[in-house]
Amino acid sequence: MNAKLRIVVVGAGYWGPNLARNFSAGRDWELAGICDLDEDRARSLADRMGHVPVFTRLDDVLVDENIDAIAVATPARTHHAVVMAGLRAGKHVLVEKPLADSRERAIEMVDEAAIRGLTLMADHTYCYTPAVLKIREIVANGSLGEILFIDSVRINLGLIQPDVDVLWDLAPHDLSIIDFVLPGGLRPAAVSAHGADPLGAGRACVGYLTIPLQNGAIAHVHVNWLSPTKIRRMVIGGTKQTLVWDDLNPQQRLSVYDRVVDLDQQSVDEVDRRSSTISYRLGDTWSPALPEHEALAEMAEEFAASIREQRSARTDGLAGLRVLSVLEAASRSLADGGNMAKVECDLLVDAAR
Amino acid sequence: MNAKLRIVVVGAGYWGPNLARNFSAGRDWELAGICDLDEDRARSLADRMGHVPVFTRLDDVLVDENIDAIAVATPARTHHAVVMAGLRAGKHVLVEKPLADSRERAIEMVDEAAIRGLTLMADHTYCYTPAVLKIREIVANGSLGEILFIDSVRINLGLIQPDVDVLWDLAPHDLSIIDFVLPGGLRPAAVSAHGADPLGAGRACVGYLTIPLQNGAIAHVHVNWLSPTKIRRMVIGGTKQTLVWDDLNPQQRLSVYDRVVDLDQQSVDEVDRRSSTISYRLGDTWSPALPEHEALAEMAEEFAASIREQRSARTDGLAGLRVLSVLEAASRSLADGGNMAKVECDLLVDAAR
Amino acid sequence: MNAKLRIVVVGAGYWGPNLARNFSAGRDWELAGICDLDEDRARSLADRMGHVPVFTRLDDVLVDENIDAIAVATPARTHHAVVMAGLRAGKHVLVEKPLADSRERAIEMVDEAAIRGLTLMADHTYCYTPAVLKIREIVANGSLGEILFIDSVRINLGLIQPDVDVLWDLAPHDLSIIDFVLPGGLRPAAVSAHGADPLGAGRACVGYLTIPLQNGAIAHVHVNWLSPTKIRRMVIGGTKQTLVWDDLNPQQRLSVYDRVVDLDQQSVDEVDRRSSTISYRLGDTWSPALPEHEALAEMAEEFAASIREQRSARTDGLAGLRVLSVLEAASRSLADGGNMAKVECDLLVDAAR
Amino acid sequence: MNAKLRIVVVGAGYWGPNLARNFSAGRDWELAGICDLDEDRARSLADRMGHVPVFTRLDDVLVDENIDAIAVATPARTHHAVVMAGLRAGKHVLVEKPLADSRERAIEMVDEAAIRGLTLMADHTYCYTPAVLKIREIVANGSLGEILFIDSVRINLGLIQPDVDVLWDLAPHDLSIIDFVLPGGLRPAAVSAHGADPLGAGRACVGYLTIPLQNGAIAHVHVNWLSPTKIRRMVIGGTKQTLVWDDLNPQQRLSVYDRVVDLDQQSVDEVDRRSSTISYRLGDTWSPALPEHEALAEMAEEFAASIREQRSARTDGLAGLRVLSVLEAASRSLADGGNMAKVECDLLVDAAR
Repeated sequence: MNAKLRIVVVGAGYWGPNLARNFSAGRDWELAGICDLDEDRARSLADRMGHVPVFTRLDDVLVDENIDAIAVATPARTHHAVVMAGLRAGKHVLVEKPLADSRERAIEMVDEAAIRGLTLMADHTYCYTPAVLKIREIVANGSLGEILFIDSVRINLGLIQPDVDVLWDLAPHDLSIIDFVLPGGLRPAAVSAHGADPLGAGRACVGYLTIPLQNGAIAHVHVNWLSPTKIRRMVIGGTKQTLVWDDLNPQQRLSVYDRVVDLDQQSVDEVDRRSSTISYRLGDTWSPALPEHEALAEMAEEFAASIREQRSARTDGLAGLRVLSVLEAASRSLADGGNMAKVECDLLVDAAR
Repeated sequence: MNAKLRIVVVGAGYWGPNLARNFSAGRDWELAGICDLDEDRARSLADRMGHVPVFTRLDDVLVDENIDAIAVATPARTHHAVVMAGLRAGKHVLVEKPLADSRERAIEMVDEAAIRGLTLMADHTYCYTPAVLKIREIVANGSLGEILFIDSVRINLGLIQPDVDVLWDLAPHDLSIIDFVLPGGLRPAAVSAHGADPLGAGRACVGYLTIPLQNGAIAHVHVNWLSPTKIRRMVIGGTKQTLVWDDLNPQQRLSVYDRVVDLDQQSVDEVDRRSSTISYRLGDTWSPALPEHEALAEMAEEFAASIREQRSARTDGLAGLRVLSVLEAASRSLADGGNMAKVECDLLVDAAR
Repeated sequence: MNAKLRIVVVGAGYWGPNLARNFSAGRDWELAGICDLDEDRARSLADRMGHVPVFTRLDDVLVDENIDAIAVATPARTHHAVVMAGLRAGKHVLVEKPLADSRERAIEMVDEAAIRGLTLMADHTYCYTPAVLKIREIVANGSLGEILFIDSVRINLGLIQPDVDVLWDLAPHDLSIIDFVLPGGLRPAAVSAHGADPLGAGRACVGYLTIPLQNGAIAHVHVNWLSPTKIRRMVIGGTKQTLVWDDLNPQQRLSVYDRVVDLDQQSVDEVDRRSSTISYRLGDTWSPALPEHEALAEMAEEFAASIREQRSARTDGLAGLRVLSVLEAASRSLADGGNMAKVECDLLVDAAR
Repeated sequence: MNAKLRIVVVGAGYWGPNLARNFSAGRDWELAGICDLDEDRARSLADRMGHVPVFTRLDDVLVDENIDAIAVATPARTHHAVVMAGLRAGKHVLVEKPLADSRERAIEMVDEAAIRGLTLMADHTYCYTPAVLKIREIVANGSLGEILFIDSVRINLGLIQPDVDVLWDLAPHDLSIIDFVLPGGLRPAAVSAHGADPLGAGRACVGYLTIPLQNGAIAHVHVNWLSPTKIRRMVIGGTKQTLVWDDLNPQQRLSVYDRVVDLDQQSVDEVDRRSSTISYRLGDTWSPALPEHEALAEMAEEFAASIREQRSARTDGLAGLRVLSVLEAASRSLADGGNMAKVECDLLVDAAR
């Protein structure tokens, strides 16, 4: 076992305590401090974590050569400044979603990390849940065959956010998961977004996102703050099998259905198409057992491993950038009445890796 | 009780027997015959219905002055010809969905019926189920308040149709229901449709339909032939209450949630918006008991009533035309990459009523 | 293919039409007539079955040498007389549950069939559903290991029967299924029954049946006419796996859980038992695909096969007798305040086979 | 607001921290210390609670006149000694279930508290959940009418306890809840218990408890350590309505069904009973909204209120004694093959109040 890596959590608000607790508990990490402009808030958290050091100035963290990494849980608009400072000081960085408040700034961050050979990791927490890790494995090993469609629903009675619409509030979860499980990640050419603001809240409270995928496949996301029933469900349909993830059914979160429509490609144009070329396979259903672990603990472990092995993290800065790129295009589409909006891609970024 | 009305069922294929059985059983109707080009098929059905007369030529039905109405269950491409002939012969007409194979032809049919003062009724069977009748009642009496969103999902492993895509196959159900429960019917200015044909079947097997409604509300329909799990669920969110219809849960098909997000309109622009203007009301849930009756029996009754009372049927030709208009626009949108397509409306039709 | 066997359905009331339809449709059988004291009722059914012969006297059926078998769907109190007459006339007999209105009479019937080498089969319809056939297969192939417990719940708002209590009305389903899936059948030494008649209906409307099985295992049945929710669920726990049958969940009727408590037998008496000897295995869940077929069609096929192969039917008279024996003991226990009542077994019956 | 009451939590093992946290957080209580023989364990908990005092000897707690009450979370076999010492020192006492390890000792404790005018309260935590409080309210206000049956199922894959069987492990939850919601509490004359130990664990792992109630009603409890599926469900059937509590369905924990079987009492003995005297009412279903609060906080509040108002707590020592009396009778029944065992009742106890 290597010596523990030393990390400071920057931002002691809503999410910071979760990060602190997991870095504190893991075998890879030593929690080397809490940094927050609000000293009381920082100290309160630091005390609960076993009286670790308190910082109120980021610079004091960055000049400390014994600190290997920072975990950034500050407001989104500050991500760019904090992360860039961290990288420039030679620290590895974990940052909350969204990576930054604009795609351009995110590119700068990704480039900076690439140039310096540092790990920049996006905290796509959901990706490290047992269910999503298993989905990634099932997709990767080819059990589903080629992917035909992905349909994701995330609806609930939700607080109307003062600064972002429902797409920016909830869809990052769906997009980061889709990015995580798709081999090669989520790289659509364009997206379409529809939304509604029927309460006059000033932003969409109901949102639908349509994302054409390769080979004629499609992904679709439904997010909604106004639904009295809570649904968190993703279906991934493949040519061989179809997977259903029902995150609110603890007794059977994942189900893999061996039921598919087969289409005989050779005879698609023939006359008696209905009877000759389409068939159903009604097979068994299978629900894999899932290990029980906390997603953040798994993520902390991956952050450490990516640093030690000098490789990209599984949810690296590029993953965060891909999600951000789709969200920005979605906002443009929404403003344009749902017309398809091009997703910007930046070849230089890929080249830089 | 008036004398029974006399009806002939035209078309003895898939749906005809259901119509025949219900017209045969009701107190309003006398089943006066079965008409089909295939005499054996007609006779087989006629025998099961108590040896009613068999017709192989439509004209023989139409010249019979003792016949008040025809129920048309022939292929969609023949609807226009059969219905127009029926109306011109002075018969009231019930016709399977879709009303016709094009909006233009449907308008002709609606106009013909209007001019002649005959009932032209669309067989939107779902509208006459106990659940949908109750939904219409709940919406009409204002229990939900103003409608904010409608989200409808109708997915299942389904036969890939040789001639129509999944939107034309399944969405007519959702659209006719939405048209039925919305006061004033479904009259969107435009729609957007996205689809995917990932199997290369030659037509969309997965479809999403987005329909902006009045006052910033939105309706959305998801239809899918490739899903191994079956879902038939519609959510109608209102300012006061929200209704969920889960058609596959016989023990609780309808649930009305008294849970809403309230937004204080006065203070939307103020600073402390998050805390001051949004609140939740978590009230009770209520599931109305539903009577048990067969939808087709109820529809047959409405057909008779509309004739006797010389009024429009609840799913009249205009309802069928509205559904058809949305479907045609959806097809145009689909062909145009999901861009919004204008829904044609024909003011003359309304004027003619 | 052998020539078809010829059968007459005796009793054209509630269940007779179902039998007639299935014997009429199968490839093994020719429906040779309908027999009922009420000629109109017999004729109405016979006409629907393609104008088969009508009998109003049982004797006319029994003297007809071209008739191979009778299916008895008359009231329970007449089963003994009709079946004995049938057997004495050399006919194979299928009879509705319960086999007879007393265990003694049932023994006579079983003996008569055994002596004459005729098939006497109990119409335990549920046993021929795809789900129960699959359960029998899973138990038989050892997938579950040794059976630890069986828990069956069958509750619903039900008509209070005028002549039988809830145990006699509903538990025959559970008992015949348990008898069918247990290797060796259901042969308990004693049973305990508790019931309640809180409405003062004159008979138990809520019933619980406890049945000690071999090797310390237990079966338990809950039947209830007063429950507003409908549950039909049987759990069969084994040392290797556990099976859950939820008959009201068409999308996943059977689930096999690879989750068990393991107990290390060697160290049961040791001190640190809690930590050392008990462990959990949390494995996958598996839901076998079930073929779709009508249970009665499958039963008709088994009836024919047992006759042709001169073997016992899978639900033979002895199976019916075993169920009846448990029910009679249950009634004695119920009358005795729930104290265990011995289940009568008749060795001669087994010997006769 | 009165001054806060001062309490010491005795026992810092599994449950003590939950008690400490809730007494620490409430407005009624001041957590005055943690007492445990194991000083490290006590100190660890005391530190987390804000560095409250640590005691390793109970006597030091009892002599402190500033301490009003103790909360006892030590092993069941020590309850009697600790509680009696507490009461004799004039402290109010909250004690974990079971009240004591025998009914006789529990009576001593109840008597001691009664004589001294002190509150002795059983920690029947479940009774203070929002769902159970609402059930109690619904039963008390007569919405259900007279109670006909109670059916409770509590099954899951559970650790086989080294010292108690499944009835003593799980049924106290069901019994304390039934005692809590039944007006007058649970006072059966006798009970029957069946169990099975199919793994040879030395104690029942599957248990069924039948409890005749007044007026012909019945309660039944199914507890099971061997079920791979988790069910926690109680049905309370009444003459007017029926309540279903599904504790694992957070979206609809309580449902009240307005569906009942009506029996016309006048004509029970008439011939045509089936048609004339039984009818169904299929009414609406209603799911009350439940407030969100932690059960232990509510219980701490009730403990304080009962002390201040010098009244019995809602789950007082007598409630604990009634549960214990049923469990002891259940054990006798289990040992006697399920025969009904008399539930001991001690009139002196009631008289003492």
